[in-house]
Amino acid sequence: MTYAPPVAEQLFVLKHVALIDELAAHERFTEATPDMVEAIVSGVGDFASGEYAPLNRVGDQVGARWDAGQVTMPPGFREAYAAFVASGWGSLDGPVAYGGQGLPFSLFSVMMEDLGTANMGFSLVNMLTPAAIEALHAHGSEAQKTTYLPKLISGEWTGTMNLTEPQAGSDVGALKTMATPVESGDHAGQWRVKGTKIFITFGEHDLTDNIVHLVLARTPDAPPGTRGISLFLVPKYRLDADGAIDEANDVACVSIEHKLGIHASPTCVMSFGDHDACYGELVGDLHGGMRAMFTMMNNARLNVGNQGMQIAERATQSALAYAAERIQGSRTRLGPIADTPRADVGPVAIIEHPDVRRMLIRMKALTQAARALTYYAAGQADRASLGLDGAQARVDILTPLVKAYGTDIGCEVASLGVQVHGGMGYVEETGAAQHYRDARIAPIYEGTNGIQAADLVGRKMTIDGGAAIKQLIDDIRSGAKGAAPLALLADDCAEVAAWMQANASSDDRLAGSTPFLTMLSVATCGWLMTIEVAALDGDSTVSPDFVAAKRQAASFYIDQIVPQAAGLKAAAMAGAAPLYAVDAATLIGRD
Amino acid sequence: MTYAPPVAEQLFVLKHVALIDELAAHERFTEATPDMVEAIVSGVGDFASGEYAPLNRVGDQVGARWDAGQVTMPPGFREAYAAFVASGWGSLDGPVAYGGQGLPFSLFSVMMEDLGTANMGFSLVNMLTPAAIEALHAHGSEAQKTTYLPKLISGEWTGTMNLTEPQAGSDVGALKTMATPVESGDHAGQWRVKGTKIFITFGEHDLTDNIVHLVLARTPDAPPGTRGISLFLVPKYRLDADGAIDEANDVACVSIEHKLGIHASPTCVMSFGDHDACYGELVGDLHGGMRAMFTMMNNARLNVGNQGMQIAERATQSALAYAAERIQGSRTRLGPIADTPRADVGPVAIIEHPDVRRMLIRMKALTQAARALTYYAAGQADRASLGLDGAQARVDILTPLVKAYGTDIGCEVASLGVQVHGGMGYVEETGAAQHYRDARIAPIYEGTNGIQAADLVGRKMTIDGGAAIKQLIDDIRSGAKGAAPLALLADDCAEVAAWMQANASSDDRLAGSTPFLTMLSVATCGWLMTIEVAALDGDSTVSPDFVAAKRQAASFYIDQIVPQAAGLKAAAMAGAAPLYAVDAATLIGRD
Repeated sequence: MTYAPPVAEQLFVLKHVALIDELAAHERFTEATPDMVEAIVSGVGDFASGEYAPLNRVGDQVGARWDAGQVTMPPGFREAYAAFVASGWGSLDGPVAYGGQGLPFSLFSVMMEDLGTANMGFSLVNMLTPAAIEALHAHGSEAQKTTYLPKLISGEWTGTMNLTEPQAGSDVGALKTMATPVESGDHAGQWRVKGTKIFITFGEHDLTDNIVHLVLARTPDAPPGTRGISLFLVPKYRLDADGAIDEANDVACVSIEHKLGIHASPTCVMSFGDHDACYGELVGDLHGGMRAMFTMMNNARLNVGNQGMQIAERATQSALAYAAERIQGSRTRLGPIADTPRADVGPVAIIEHPDVRRMLIRMKALTQAARALTYYAAGQADRASLGLDGAQARVDILTPLVKAYGTDIGCEVASLGVQVHGGMGYVEETGAAQHYRDARIAPIYEGTNGIQAADLVGRKMTIDGGAAIKQLIDDIRSGAKGAAPLALLADDCAEVAAWMQANASSDDRLAGSTPFLTMLSVATCGWLMTIEVAALDGDSTVSPDFVAAKRQAASFYIDQIVPQAAGLKAAAMAGAAPLYAVDAATLIGRD
Repeated sequence: MTYAPPVAEQLFVLKHVALIDELAAHERFTEATPDMVEAIVSGVGDFASGEYAPLNRVGDQVGARWDAGQVTMPPGFREAYAAFVASGWGSLDGPVAYGGQGLPFSLFSVMMEDLGTANMGFSLVNMLTPAAIEALHAHGSEAQKTTYLPKLISGEWTGTMNLTEPQAGSDVGALKTMATPVESGDHAGQWRVKGTKIFITFGEHDLTDNIVHLVLARTPDAPPGTRGISLFLVPKYRLDADGAIDEANDVACVSIEHKLGIHASPTCVMSFGDHDACYGELVGDLHGGMRAMFTMMNNARLNVGNQGMQIAERATQSALAYAAERIQGSRTRLGPIADTPRADVGPVAIIEHPDVRRMLIRMKALTQAARALTYYAAGQADRASLGLDGAQARVDILTPLVKAYGTDIGCEVASLGVQVHGGMGYVEETGAAQHYRDARIAPIYEGTNGIQAADLVGRKMTIDGGAAIKQLIDDIRSGAKGAAPLALLADDCAEVAAWMQANASSDDRLAGSTPFLTMLSVATCGWLMTIEVAALDGDSTVSPDFVAAKRQAASFYIDQIVPQAAGLKAAAMAGAAPLYAVDAATLIGRD
């Protein structure tokens, strides 16, 4: 089962939800003309389906392999990555001063979507490097930028984020890796880095000549917790005075994880400074590591949310194709069904059975909702980068929604995909099971979905004294005219938000954080779907089939999925007391 | 991570939901005294945790292996299975006349629970044999019963169900395997069976000396569809006149599937009669195969629903243990929390964080709900076997709920288990990922959950002219006094059921079948949880911790999960029209 980029849908949502034409009216994005947008969207789709998609199975079945510190990618991956570098897609939204094309993040998001839908595990290498670019661009010295950015932007080298340690997962402040200033000798002015990092995506691989590690570490006498963390640039190979690759740094990939999915993505245990000869440079301010990390993580969180949509798209395409081919069961009593006019039909493809259709339409509706949310957030991120009014607050609120709800959708849709395949879905050869396994990482990494929910009801809830979240809910409510379930859900969201802001303790908010995140995400998606439907009439570029299918998916979402989210209100407002009615020991007690 | 049988919970639910003491008042079940019940529940728990649980990982990692027609089980499985046979647990509810102990199915269900919680893949061998016993006991000749039942009941031989063929999955009537009467020669009076069956659980293995295949096949000149299907007994090894193992039958295991999970369970492609020398006996009436199959499948469906609870229990135990050990993050602002009285605490185990606690309590509440539903249905099945008034109708309605909702719970709880483990949950070594993979088969086999939903809104909706389902909803409503969310959900269920019975076309009912199944299941579970809570005061055998934890789980279920199910009402009553608003081609169309 191959992958067909949903070009018309992507262009439609870029136009009407990300409002890409509005962006192109700003001087920085004048290159993003409609023709250019169309060329890029169809170009990355062709590239992804042509180069990345065919490697999805071998990526899963062979996977990245570790031997004596070396990581070997599966057959075909080096060539495909070289094709990616040659294509120039990697430079899409990179800063122009360092070789990038300076196009909107919205377009980069479409590229990531296509690469990840084609091959989620592989595409992580394309996702991590931009995070490193962003951090270096925002916080690096001019020398660091000149030396590293062009290679990272072209994709000749890749970047990594080194945060997690065994005792420091969600609690980044607990990390112990040390960086000590080098006082004299060849490396004077640099820092000697020592420590172990885990869960380092593409920490080692054979795709490029060098790897640029961005490493969070503590410095001598630094304050405890997150306030004492600094960011360091640690190349796999150190560079000579001309910026060419010189000797190997004291960085080792000790092992890679045996994971449930994304087997094409080596998840590395990295050891820095085993021989006290790992040298790095400070990036940005001393003790400014957390700020730099948030720079890296914000877009990374949007990109992980994007992955939920990716796997949902791939799983949906696969399920639709299977359901249209698999003949099973007769239909004898038919309702008002457009495409099967006869009152009695023989064996039919399972797509004709109501409950299978329900699953397929749910998959489509959720995927389109995730796309609307993802593109909308990307468009707002672009507006924030232009300094437009309110955009930063909006993207700040949207980020946890995109990350958590998008990845929840990825898991649900991949699971429905297995179900549509029936027994064949449980057999690895159909690929449905791979999507189910691959999808499951996305709610975990880049801040678990629980961390996202905590971010929403904590930091994000209080932006502009709570006005920013109220504004989003008001926008949804205004847009919900005529969509009664959506208006009701918007009211519910407003009520929960007001309760959280006014009366709830921190624990009460946290106790309801996940249900509220889902409610607000669904309300936002429902609103964006109504915007899409409203845009159908005025858009002459879309086909009648597109119009009909979009109306169906949007109606299903608003009439059937939105009311389900309203059912979460009781949980969102239940408070913490029910969770702590018994102590931890009693909770664990098996009887 | 090992498995601790939840003995107190099992005994409590047996007593108050399955009402086992009432059963013991009937002559057939007088052996099921409280002492005997306690001995069995603690005995099977010890056996399962001692013999089966330690093999769960090797079962997953090594798995059943096929080579040249032979299937080799992983190391330790032969010994553990021999211990099972020696223990006599297999004969628990088997008919007394053939060596069984004749105890209630409720107790068999507890045994299956323990075996499956310990090792889901392995326990399938214990689940399939009883289905064969049931079919032979109900439909076999006296000679067949005398010959085969004692060996199957003791577990010396195992049984299989051979239904599925490549073109005949959910649509059993499409099967093509042929059985032709043998007119003369050594096998006169027998049937020559020829055909290929797929997805045959434990179709071949090295645990026992013989395997008894029950095979659905078509006979010459049989009517088309399900009306022309008959059931045949096809032993792996034919027996001599004394019932001893004689020559090999012409039955071959051609391959086994490479599956997402339950790797310890060989899923076989079986070829019957490659050399036209596969001989079997007719079981029951000619063309009576479907009736016999339903005998096999009804308990099998309850047993598969049981599996959802099993994996949920195992995943919950594992997540609780991890959450109590994993230190991550401080808690500084505390609400009214019983077990952390200080206003400022340092790093804490993640079980103390509200959103992690929410996940854990949700896991516990769902698992307990599934247990309540499973045991209740088992108790009703026992009552039906005694011919008690209304019990058959009740178990008929409950069967699709147990199967579909129970297995949905298995998947959700296993997924939450991965999430609680964070990054470690995605790494295979913790075992959380195995539960997630294992759980995913249960919504598919023994009739997909969509088939269960169709069964509910079709055949089950009309039992006693619709009175049976109304009675269940009335029982829920009466029991919901004081639990407002539950009363509301019961009203919603009544409204949906009335609409389906009165106004809805078959397609409309099918379109809402899955949401309605979930609503009715949650309502039933909520009702059973209120029964459990009501029983706490009068039960002096349970500890204060048990009481507190049960109250917490039940309140969480009723206050937070029940309202979510009410959110499904719109979907349950949306009808089929939205699903068929576009034709299949447009649905598939990628743009």
